[in-house]
Amino acid sequence: MSGPQNDFQKVHESSSGPVQANPYGPNPSDFLSNVNNFQLIDSTLREGEQFANSFFSTEKKIEIAKALDDFGVDYIELTSPVASEQSRKDCEAICKLGLKAKILTHIRCHMDDARVAVETGVDGVDVVIGTSKFLRQYSHGKDMNYIAKSAIEVIEFVKSKGIEIRFSSEDSFRSDLVDLLNIYKTVNKIGVNRVGIADTVGCANPRQVYELVRTLKSVVSCDIECHFHNDTGCAIANAYCALEAGARLIDVCVLGIGERNGIVPLGGLMARMIVAAPEYVKSKYKLHKIRDIENLVADAVEVNIPFNNPITGFCAFTHKAGIHAKAILANPSTYEILDPHDFGMKRYIHFANRLTGWNAIKSRVDQLNLNLTDDQVKEVTAKIKKLGDVRPLNIDDVDSIIKDFHTELSTPMLKPTSAKDREDSLDLNDGPASKKTRTK
Amino acid sequence: MSGPQNDFQKVHESSSGPVQANPYGPNPSDFLSNVNNFQLIDSTLREGEQFANSFFSTEKKIEIAKALDDFGVDYIELTSPVASEQSRKDCEAICKLGLKAKILTHIRCHMDDARVAVETGVDGVDVVIGTSKFLRQYSHGKDMNYIAKSAIEVIEFVKSKGIEIRFSSEDSFRSDLVDLLNIYKTVNKIGVNRVGIADTVGCANPRQVYELVRTLKSVVSCDIECHFHNDTGCAIANAYCALEAGARLIDVCVLGIGERNGIVPLGGLMARMIVAAPEYVKSKYKLHKIRDIENLVADAVEVNIPFNNPITGFCAFTHKAGIHAKAILANPSTYEILDPHDFGMKRYIHFANRLTGWNAIKSRVDQLNLNLTDDQVKEVTAKIKKLGDVRPLNIDDVDSIIKDFHTELSTPMLKPTSAKDREDSLDLNDGPASKKTRTK
Repeated sequence: MSGPQNDFQKVHESSSGPVQANPYGPNPSDFLSNVNNFQLIDSTLREGEQFANSFFSTEKKIEIAKALDDFGVDYIELTSPVASEQSRKDCEAICKLGLKAKILTHIRCHMDDARVAVETGVDGVDVVIGTSKFLRQYSHGKDMNYIAKSAIEVIEFVKSKGIEIRFSSEDSFRSDLVDLLNIYKTVNKIGVNRVGIADTVGCANPRQVYELVRTLKSVVSCDIECHFHNDTGCAIANAYCALEAGARLIDVCVLGIGERNGIVPLGGLMARMIVAAPEYVKSKYKLHKIRDIENLVADAVEVNIPFNNPITGFCAFTHKAGIHAKAILANPSTYEILDPHDFGMKRYIHFANRLTGWNAIKSRVDQLNLNLTDDQVKEVTAKIKKLGDVRPLNIDDVDSIIKDFHTELSTPMLKPTSAKDREDSLDLNDGPASKKTRTK
Repeated sequence: MSGPQNDFQKVHESSSGPVQANPYGPNPSDFLSNVNNFQLIDSTLREGEQFANSFFSTEKKIEIAKALDDFGVDYIELTSPVASEQSRKDCEAICKLGLKAKILTHIRCHMDDARVAVETGVDGVDVVIGTSKFLRQYSHGKDMNYIAKSAIEVIEFVKSKGIEIRFSSEDSFRSDLVDLLNIYKTVNKIGVNRVGIADTVGCANPRQVYELVRTLKSVVSCDIECHFHNDTGCAIANAYCALEAGARLIDVCVLGIGERNGIVPLGGLMARMIVAAPEYVKSKYKLHKIRDIENLVADAVEVNIPFNNPITGFCAFTHKAGIHAKAILANPSTYEILDPHDFGMKRYIHFANRLTGWNAIKSRVDQLNLNLTDDQVKEVTAKIKKLGDVRPLNIDDVDSIIKDFHTELSTPMLKPTSAKDREDSLDLNDGPASKKTRTK
């Protein structure tokens, strides 16, 4: 070998430990990071009610609220009590449940709404007003000075009732930065508990989020809450970057349900956060409840769990390619950043297909309690791959091939004289292996 | 009002234009950005074949390859020809189709694989080897010097055949940075077409991706390709940040199918990119074909399109809350960053629910070609919300309520004497409105 290889600076395998305890943890240069200290505001009963299919009866709302509380969310946000008469009654009913989670309701920045909200028994009120040019022109038609005036009136009124108050802009990422910082500075000075940033249309990208939150952190002393829609697939990542920049609270919904295709999903965010802050996440939230909560909400709104859902999608912990299966069998961390057991889920090695490898088949041979040498396993693997080229396989197919192969080996009198004869029977689509399966 | 309000610095609405032509476009400070100049490597027929449910017949592979080519992907990546005999034949068959897209196959960093790959007729070979401590220990068991030696041999062999060569590490984000940069520098000097970064386990976060790609850009002169798994929900965002940092090519699959819960989805990435680079994306890719391609692949692997899929999920362009509906009717940009028409999709205003508002109902009244004053629309909206509090509504319910209301107004002789009488009939679960619907 010539030049290029010599240019490669040979390195010796280092035995020194990693520089950082958790290399996927908070970036040490993010001094304001709340990756290890975040809170969840679940909005399934507010944003989630705006999902196309949602109609939650009082009983279903209570069931969902209790499940979320049991899981450990910090806040539960409810539909505005002025949305409808029943919405107000349901809000009052949930406030009376005595949950550990604080109960919030979400209203427009109007005194009419605020007066009703503070009488429901909630622990806090989330106030929102559109600040983008689009919303100011086509929704409420008010300028920033009017917005500031309304905000101050509503905030001071809610504070006078002794409950929490959050002020959020809407469509923050299409709002003028100076306008935004100006209004946040104003409401921070009055003394709100939180200010909110909302990517109402789902246009924000992660580094934009980081920059805006970091800038806002230099303007306000209160907590920052973030609300990200998922129209362009970045909601979870945006939430993570917001926490890195110093946001404290993230709005989530079960399965992400909400307007259009929704917001940050509770389960997906847990998948993201457990990688970065495993101890914090596992000590605070009952992760093995995620599947039940998702099924509860999916049933209520009549959707299926997406096949590719983080954590609970049917194949989230299924390994298929031979090279993956081999390594997973040796050490699951090779191809898994999430441990399925943390979520009450199980790992599955998909060995019944043409991409399988002999290590995966060897594992199956061991499960079947059969004795084959490595060379024999390689031989039977070739047969399995050959049939896998012809049609989809199931576990029974593979087991039949393995058992037939083993039987032939252990009963030499019946063994065909040439290897070719044995293989012929596997070439057929409806060969013995599959026939056995079908007549079971 | 006292202190706080006076602190708010009054600003006048500015009439000056935005500083940047597209505020959601590439960040001007990302000098190396390829957000406006990216390419797609579709791996549905390689990574996607590793999805739990996948079994693609030759005919289905050809149908998918043609559809992807028609859509406009730059490359189509196929399963290794050494995976199985049929895999090799299928690879050869697809190479003979004469597609515009370049055909790649994906192999281990072994001469055994490379010798087969170069004979299939592919335009290029994607070589991969695990570089993380995990994979080096539990998968192939080789050190970095062995990896470099194998890489050089395979690369020089493939180059000698006059076809494209990519060298990728596997599990790049859990590999030692010095090892990584060292091997990339080595292969870049030999003259590969691309180097690849792979987040094989889905652990990477967006700012980590940006940093690694930016660092790599200072080490290599060739193009950078990125491959992101979606275990923690960040695949699309990571792809975007990689392009911002100067990566050129992104691996995608239709619906994101792949090992575990898959990789960057083609449709989701298009949703992300059209916001940032609308002209580039619309001129290069046939976006209105996304739905058909997704349906083709979903049928082949027997999954449903996730309810919350970007662009093609059933509710991606459905607006429900009254305040949203009002603004959307005035200007869709208020609550939409994506234009459904760009994808051959339609917008839908969901007005048959208790969160509805009078602007949405007024729009429906107009569609029904009925004349009602604003006050009358508000009155009938209250009725609709009242029934919506009792049970889920459909469009027929709302239309019946509106038509009944209109009929009563226009036939004063039959009008009940008190408003209460009219409302009573709407209180019932099986009132006239719903009965009409059910007996249709």
